[in-house]
Amino acid sequence: MDMTIGDFLLRRLQEFGIRHLFGVPGDYNLTLLEQVEALPSLRFIGNCNELNAAYAADGYARTQGFGAVLTTYGVGDLSALNGIAGAYAERVPVIMISGMPPLHAIIDRALMHHTLCDGNYDNIMVTLRQFTVAQARITVENAAQEIDRVLQTCFRERRPVYLQLPSDLAYLTIEVPDTPLQLSESRSEPGQLHKVVTQLQQRLAAARNPVLLLDIDVERFGLTGRVLELIERLELPFANLPPAKAMLAESHPLCLGTYAGAGSAPSVREAIEQSDCVISIGARFTDTSTALFSQKFKDGALIQLQPYAASIAKVHYNAVSMGQVLEKLIQQPPTLCATPRQIPPFSAPQAVRALPEQPLSQLRFWQRMAHLIKGGELIIAESGTSSAGLNGLRMPSGVTYITQPIWGSIGYTLPALLGSLLAQPERRQMLFIGDGSLQMTVQELSTILAHELKPVIFLINNDGYTIERLILGENSSYNDINPWRYAQLPQVLDTRDRSRHFTVHTEDQLEAALVEAESADSLVFIEVVMERMDAPESLKRFARLFAEFDYGLQPLEQAAIAS
Amino acid sequence: MDMTIGDFLLRRLQEFGIRHLFGVPGDYNLTLLEQVEALPSLRFIGNCNELNAAYAADGYARTQGFGAVLTTYGVGDLSALNGIAGAYAERVPVIMISGMPPLHAIIDRALMHHTLCDGNYDNIMVTLRQFTVAQARITVENAAQEIDRVLQTCFRERRPVYLQLPSDLAYLTIEVPDTPLQLSESRSEPGQLHKVVTQLQQRLAAARNPVLLLDIDVERFGLTGRVLELIERLELPFANLPPAKAMLAESHPLCLGTYAGAGSAPSVREAIEQSDCVISIGARFTDTSTALFSQKFKDGALIQLQPYAASIAKVHYNAVSMGQVLEKLIQQPPTLCATPRQIPPFSAPQAVRALPEQPLSQLRFWQRMAHLIKGGELIIAESGTSSAGLNGLRMPSGVTYITQPIWGSIGYTLPALLGSLLAQPERRQMLFIGDGSLQMTVQELSTILAHELKPVIFLINNDGYTIERLILGENSSYNDINPWRYAQLPQVLDTRDRSRHFTVHTEDQLEAALVEAESADSLVFIEVVMERMDAPESLKRFARLFAEFDYGLQPLEQAAIAS
Repeated sequence: MDMTIGDFLLRRLQEFGIRHLFGVPGDYNLTLLEQVEALPSLRFIGNCNELNAAYAADGYARTQGFGAVLTTYGVGDLSALNGIAGAYAERVPVIMISGMPPLHAIIDRALMHHTLCDGNYDNIMVTLRQFTVAQARITVENAAQEIDRVLQTCFRERRPVYLQLPSDLAYLTIEVPDTPLQLSESRSEPGQLHKVVTQLQQRLAAARNPVLLLDIDVERFGLTGRVLELIERLELPFANLPPAKAMLAESHPLCLGTYAGAGSAPSVREAIEQSDCVISIGARFTDTSTALFSQKFKDGALIQLQPYAASIAKVHYNAVSMGQVLEKLIQQPPTLCATPRQIPPFSAPQAVRALPEQPLSQLRFWQRMAHLIKGGELIIAESGTSSAGLNGLRMPSGVTYITQPIWGSIGYTLPALLGSLLAQPERRQMLFIGDGSLQMTVQELSTILAHELKPVIFLINNDGYTIERLILGENSSYNDINPWRYAQLPQVLDTRDRSRHFTVHTEDQLEAALVEAESADSLVFIEVVMERMDAPESLKRFARLFAEFDYGLQPLEQAAIAS
Repeated sequence: MDMTIGDFLLRRLQEFGIRHLFGVPGDYNLTLLEQVEALPSLRFIGNCNELNAAYAADGYARTQGFGAVLTTYGVGDLSALNGIAGAYAERVPVIMISGMPPLHAIIDRALMHHTLCDGNYDNIMVTLRQFTVAQARITVENAAQEIDRVLQTCFRERRPVYLQLPSDLAYLTIEVPDTPLQLSESRSEPGQLHKVVTQLQQRLAAARNPVLLLDIDVERFGLTGRVLELIERLELPFANLPPAKAMLAESHPLCLGTYAGAGSAPSVREAIEQSDCVISIGARFTDTSTALFSQKFKDGALIQLQPYAASIAKVHYNAVSMGQVLEKLIQQPPTLCATPRQIPPFSAPQAVRALPEQPLSQLRFWQRMAHLIKGGELIIAESGTSSAGLNGLRMPSGVTYITQPIWGSIGYTLPALLGSLLAQPERRQMLFIGDGSLQMTVQELSTILAHELKPVIFLINNDGYTIERLILGENSSYNDINPWRYAQLPQVLDTRDRSRHFTVHTEDQLEAALVEAESADSLVFIEVVMERMDAPESLKRFARLFAEFDYGLQPLEQAAIAS
């Protein structure tokens, strides 16, 4: 059938379940935007800047499956880049589209603004190639083929891709397939798959204390249901690495908790490190996931299933899909000889009684939050104090928990919240973010308000970069930030007074705010003021380890520099 | 002499006249920040995010000569990148330093956060290589040599450079030179220089109506004084391309005005296009400088002097420094046969009498600004309505005029103002910025307030992306932005009430605000509300040309899409 290039691209986006396209209009993307404007089924969400747009598309993709962002060439592409790299690192499928100068200008190497004006039209592509899994510059001849190739790669690898659309092409008509894009997971090589499955069956059958160790790629590849089925069929205890926190319900009777090497609770550590068969699924042993590479396994115990590879006792197998391995194990489950492990049952957190005029502490604040989170919420935690505090809680069932533990770009979460809210506007959503992080991307609060979205935002105001102060420079001026009147932000970044706001210093003030938040039919912004150097204990420990690993500083030297 | 790597690097920065280092602290740059903290002569300016830090370093470099920005690896580098690319495009020497993971982790390809956690430590370097003229990853062995090589390249090319400093190296001691870094401009190849100078002398002597056509690289290479000397010695009329506006006083009796191809005033166009000898210095004929490549010269009339190359009548000469050509011409000036051209004298703008209750129009607003600018100010104009409005005024002497006409990244100017203010805090500085642009980087207002800087900021609030509406989508929703209570921003992004603010709709309100601004000893923020589709005529013309060039749209089609 015949269709314009722009309309075809937008049709494909919708086949991915995309109903919102994030971005910023610019000189080279206006015709595609006109085509979006004409579609009732796809809405353009204008962001305040392109980095925020990329973060929002990431938050949307984590919730909806796929996300998309539209920028203008050069300035927009490079502004968005940090968000795209984050999506790559965390394996989030974001489709980035850049409206670029017209094809005739590219061919002439014309000195157009938003380029370096040296005739080079390759540098942006070279850059995006570092942080996306497929790229194309669309022409009339290649459009139908290249758009589909790039989008199929996005699906297969669940990572960002990049399309350049010259500004004069969106309205040109081409022949395109009538049918939806065929999307399929990578198939395993049959011989390799057979070897891996057979060994897994044998090892599981023989193991005394087998466990599963799960990471977030299980969710990215849509395998949480399959993994749960396997767990329940084989009665296998499981732990998650920190990025996969709450991916499966932490109240599940077979849930051990979070494994983070030396940063784990003793019972989890023992269960993993003493197991004779640890089947890890999608695991990446990163610095922050493992308390600086302190993970330990019994010799030969670690089996790694990756999205499209596996290793067993250090023998590597290419072209083995973890989805298909799970499928086969469920179809042909081994009979386990292991005695079912006794796991202490999940107990709901105790209610915390607010003390009047008691200044809020990190310890008590997170205890209170444990009680506030009832199950079913979508919770976003900024890297640092917020993620450390929430990582310490056992999440009830149905919670979606979003953090950015690998890329760790502060400021990510506020725009990501915009994305997750648009994907699931009816769900109760909460953001926990620090003051330094909020300042990075604060303007996106405006877009959240503009679309009448209703999250609860907790701003942890602890007067600067506490996580950095814990590593080095407790009293150094570079860790200070200029304080704001945070609670007034929703009234200033919007004109229609669609929010409630509170500043709380004490436990009873927090309690009062939470009561009002409960019944509010609007965005709620709660500024929570806490002491500068108060932080979850786990964060303090990590910071000390980090100072040593990163700077070669012993605690005494750290103190000497600080003095 | 012996010195730590960090201290040596910071010493070198100071040799470039750098007294302020912009950036954001992060996990991998804290030891270098401790070393900055210990120096009384170099101050760290913490920005709200890294893009803003790069923009601020750019604004600082344009005012002070050189600028520097410190980021943390990955997240910080990529956030700053758009600002660095802008500095490359506009030829602004910014030294970017990235604190990266420790060397042992790089060697081990460790899965550290702020990387893609795939062991790749090259992708950020590949990326920065596209937008900087020299790069190095510092080690103990190469530090002394590589730091100097990279900084010398920055000086020679007046473009950004990039240094990666692994986090565990800043405190290690190395042997470094005692002496300041030798900085010298590129020398010409003697034979080539002789050929170019001789031909220039002959051509100038024989020309009937020679003119100079100046671009901003004259200033970047510190040659404005030399060019002025040549102009006055030979009584040569001169015009500037738009990026070089106000580089030489527009009130100079030999100043023709701005040449922008078909976008020029008729007298300037005639003077350039009918000249038999146009000596251009540093000229880049970009789309925005030339009203879409409409520049015209008589056959063989155009001579191009570039920083380190020249062309005369389409014959190219390598290795010819424009500084040395100017030097030689001043030393051995030709005798001109041309009759001095009559140029109408510069007349100071007429005072505009404010009309009570008269809504502000673009036309009248810029006329009023022409009268407000007395001479000596530093004025920053955001790309779009602001730069179009100010480009239309003749600037009195001593004005420094900063825009970003080549890269054109909106949001650039507010952080750039922070940089120029720190470089010259005593000077009267004014920013003109639109609402869409302000939203991009608004948080940096906080840093301006934190340092008690006192600019006058005019926010042109015309309800969305007017420049894009002029190109396409006048009434399309993607060109809308969520309105804010702009005038309250200074009170919310700071807690110490160090500002005055006004919202003005009419001419008399503007007048009253200007009177108060005159005597205010604080930052002054004036929100100027104007009609959505009101814009300087030059911008409307450019937008029409642009729609045709970029989208292949004739005005009628543009109207049809919009309807």
